[in-house]
Amino acid sequence: MALVTFLSDFGDQDYYVPAVKAKMLSINPQLNIIDISHNIEAHDMEHAAFVLRSTFREFPKGTVHLVGINTVGVMTHGYIGVKLEEHIFVGPNNGILSLLADNDPGILVQFADIHLKNSTFPTRDILAPIAAKVASGAAIHDFGGPLTNFRKLMSRQAKATREHIIGHVIRIDRYGNLLTNIRRDVFDKLNPGKFKIQFGRESVDRLQTGYDEVEAGDPFVFFNSLEVLEIGINHGNGGKLLGLKQDSVIYIHFGG
Amino acid sequence: MALVTFLSDFGDQDYYVPAVKAKMLSINPQLNIIDISHNIEAHDMEHAAFVLRSTFREFPKGTVHLVGINTVGVMTHGYIGVKLEEHIFVGPNNGILSLLADNDPGILVQFADIHLKNSTFPTRDILAPIAAKVASGAAIHDFGGPLTNFRKLMSRQAKATREHIIGHVIRIDRYGNLLTNIRRDVFDKLNPGKFKIQFGRESVDRLQTGYDEVEAGDPFVFFNSLEVLEIGINHGNGGKLLGLKQDSVIYIHFGG
Amino acid sequence: MALVTFLSDFGDQDYYVPAVKAKMLSINPQLNIIDISHNIEAHDMEHAAFVLRSTFREFPKGTVHLVGINTVGVMTHGYIGVKLEEHIFVGPNNGILSLLADNDPGILVQFADIHLKNSTFPTRDILAPIAAKVASGAAIHDFGGPLTNFRKLMSRQAKATREHIIGHVIRIDRYGNLLTNIRRDVFDKLNPGKFKIQFGRESVDRLQTGYDEVEAGDPFVFFNSLEVLEIGINHGNGGKLLGLKQDSVIYIHFGG
Repeated sequence: MALVTFLSDFGDQDYYVPAVKAKMLSINPQLNIIDISHNIEAHDMEHAAFVLRSTFREFPKGTVHLVGINTVGVMTHGYIGVKLEEHIFVGPNNGILSLLADNDPGILVQFADIHLKNSTFPTRDILAPIAAKVASGAAIHDFGGPLTNFRKLMSRQAKATREHIIGHVIRIDRYGNLLTNIRRDVFDKLNPGKFKIQFGRESVDRLQTGYDEVEAGDPFVFFNSLEVLEIGINHGNGGKLLGLKQDSVIYIHFGG
Repeated sequence: MALVTFLSDFGDQDYYVPAVKAKMLSINPQLNIIDISHNIEAHDMEHAAFVLRSTFREFPKGTVHLVGINTVGVMTHGYIGVKLEEHIFVGPNNGILSLLADNDPGILVQFADIHLKNSTFPTRDILAPIAAKVASGAAIHDFGGPLTNFRKLMSRQAKATREHIIGHVIRIDRYGNLLTNIRRDVFDKLNPGKFKIQFGRESVDRLQTGYDEVEAGDPFVFFNSLEVLEIGINHGNGGKLLGLKQDSVIYIHFGG
Repeated sequence: MALVTFLSDFGDQDYYVPAVKAKMLSINPQLNIIDISHNIEAHDMEHAAFVLRSTFREFPKGTVHLVGINTVGVMTHGYIGVKLEEHIFVGPNNGILSLLADNDPGILVQFADIHLKNSTFPTRDILAPIAAKVASGAAIHDFGGPLTNFRKLMSRQAKATREHIIGHVIRIDRYGNLLTNIRRDVFDKLNPGKFKIQFGRESVDRLQTGYDEVEAGDPFVFFNSLEVLEIGINHGNGGKLLGLKQDSVIYIHFGG
């Protein structure tokens, strides 16, 4: 049974999500459609990209991922298919697909029929049929020609020098834990053995390996299963208690 | 793999949705159950009908649609199966199934055992088994006799004359866009080429074809993929900025 | 197609839910994964247990149920598999699996590799692979040895004597109806034919059989499809109108 994942900001009270699924199932009723999330903040491409980037590699190679966010308007720049680490993504050419990995995608297809259709619901009318057909065995090349203007967005990167790393909160999760863009490999390479991590009014000089190695109410800092720095308060809502939000600065100073 | 869609106002924090799915899967573990929505406003049959009406035709012909809203109480009038445009609907006889199309359903079955069972959870106990069996190949007739008192509700229709159309907002979606009950075919037939569309304190005399042909912050008006008039604010929340809500009046005046 | 159910408090805006599903599908792409709920209140094991306890028996025997709540921290006590009424549960040994039935589970396995892995996302890294493999035919014993310290939590039980039952509200559902821990069999055994049920400032001396046998605005009390006492207000939000919340006391006095 072929897999398609589906990510959007369509919410769960409108007809948009089931209409897209119906369109795919009308092409192949055997599809197994897995929701990534449909409660992405409306129009928030960073949120959408973060969620998909954090999960797509867990799916079997060859999985088709349908991305339905910001698919209408002048910033859309058409609809495309890309291949990245043996996964296939179908979505708008608005930059979101450039945020899924550090490397550029290998295969890029500009879908051919976008000038023929004048749809106000292109996720259903243009992207869903292609996703369903590719998941059912069709080649992504069959749906268009080479893409020449792949739109790129820059994700907010941590800045690293020998003295410090300046990173940011990129997501506060349901539990109030703060996920950052500070990667373990970068930290490990620079860390001389002594460091200070500052966030809000807190400062710590050691890392934990999980959520509860500190007293309840104290802050924890560790590299999580995404291999990025995660910060929170044991048994508390870190975002609220630390006064931090998305984009808040996390500062690491190396040395004495 | 047989398809069943499932629509309810059960929310996503209670045991109601998984219990209904479990009941269907215990009859046929091969069923592919697709959620339409379970976050319909509690008891809101217009919302539920709008979502299902806007999406059921996209599913393959023969799909069984399970409708679990307002299934208990004196207004329920029993449980029925209807066939409409080669789709099969299983739900309460409270009028919701009359709101899915302008035409009357072709086949109507009053389920036989409703007087035998005294369930306080009929979506699970009465409707789910029938939906699962019909999706697995049983005939809807097998579960009851002819329905003689099909309950009808009137959906709010736009009023149209040669001079004007008076319609209403029937749904404000997640993005704040206003979906109305003014249909493109009605508008096209009456439109002499000159018109004025009034909503809230705004008035426009031309249509767009999509969301962003106007300046950011300006209102757009176009016939959307449902072929009904949609109104919003480019890059803004139309409902809030225009001060409109569900049932707000949209007035179209034809001529000079 | 093998069934796995999945219950968590991961919410619907993060990567946690799809990552766990992806991990299972990468082991067996044929799995049919059914969501119980992911919008359980964060860390609320009573809420989670109530929802799963109320629905697992409806699934086919042999179904594997993956439970991902409070899986990290000192209270976790490792990861286990248990067999209960021919259903298999995979989750943390934090007591939640003791809340699913009055009887102790029959087979208990302590998963072997938990000391080898140092994951901050054990639902994905430890539990999901085992759930997927067991659902695909592996034996739960293959993943560890006998469990000797099965953690038990006490669910709040109603207290019953010949004179009275003192119970509590254990869940207020989406409609504002109050589900209690007062069971029909206990009530029936003690009821001499005359009783008074008190909750908030209301008192009733008879039971209904459903939601709307009282006037709109009046309270109803009946034994619902879970065979527990349910209380609400016909056409109203019982929780709000009665001023009751989770853990509020329901008092039944028997006799004259």
